[in-house]
Amino acid sequence: MVFYLLARPRAESELLAEAIIAVKDRVKLCSNCFSLTESDPCDLCTDPRRDASMLCVIAEAKDIYAIERTSAYRGRYHVLGGLISPMDGIGPAQLRVKDLVERIARENPVELIIATNPNAEGEATALYLSRLISPSGVRVTRLAYGLPIGGDLDYADEVTLAKALEGRRTL
Amino acid sequence: MVFYLLARPRAESELLAEAIIAVKDRVKLCSNCFSLTESDPCDLCTDPRRDASMLCVIAEAKDIYAIERTSAYRGRYHVLGGLISPMDGIGPAQLRVKDLVERIARENPVELIIATNPNAEGEATALYLSRLISPSGVRVTRLAYGLPIGGDLDYADEVTLAKALEGRRTL
Repeated sequence: MVFYLLARPRAESELLAEAIIAVKDRVKLCSNCFSLTESDPCDLCTDPRRDASMLCVIAEAKDIYAIERTSAYRGRYHVLGGLISPMDGIGPAQLRVKDLVERIARENPVELIIATNPNAEGEATALYLSRLISPSGVRVTRLAYGLPIGGDLDYADEVTLAKALEGRRTL
Repeated sequence: MVFYLLARPRAESELLAEAIIAVKDRVKLCSNCFSLTESDPCDLCTDPRRDASMLCVIAEAKDIYAIERTSAYRGRYHVLGGLISPMDGIGPAQLRVKDLVERIARENPVELIIATNPNAEGEATALYLSRLISPSGVRVTRLAYGLPIGGDLDYADEVTLAKALEGRRTL
């Protein structure tokens, strides 16, 4: 990066420096969904074309971009700010779980999609949220586990293949 | 391999040579499921502890080992001997589809799990078999698509993540 900057005009370095400061000054968290935004509430929360009956729970704000890239989801988001991890001293109190419960009471979504990563912390968080929120009548769902598209049975690990068998769907 | 053989006693090379010939002489295809076997019908077809009401359709005999490693499946198998691929001139007539239809009529399974690879040929074959066999009343299912266990939303490709959203399950 240094060699690139040295090779370019001074004005370009100034633009980059300004942009770096602007990121810190202007980007903040949405007070409703805790995604990154310049306006509060964020565009995702205020866009009337998005389906308010679906709420997708994710660990980090950056996961929104992964899901938006698919164009398969048009609901709203809620950023937890991490995952339950007793080893690291992170429990529900350290995450935005209370905000989520209050938001569900306020917005009355029909479905809560838990899109945490398919690992130990993601699973623990999904189970915790399911037990906490299912009794209120909201349908709590989890992303499917299985074979990645374009993959190969031969290269799939045992646990993934077992989950793909367990989660098989009627054609 | 050559340096290994040179470093070991002659008897060991003889054992290996005999084993290589034995593979060609003794291993054949099971006349029922077309898996690799030394006895016909094979152990998978004759084992009474295996669930005869479930039939798992796979492209190649080696896929049996991938599924057996999971310990998640205790039914029987049917090896197609390939996948439908018009580009390569492979249609249903080149595969063991007729044998499958006859076998279903004979063995009356409740469920047919199509465990072909999650790619274009695997999907085409799954759809073809589903349309062919569903009308007979057998429940035709497909392995789940989704996130591999231990994966990360960030690293999942768009199509896999879209499939994981589409195939989400109630917790």
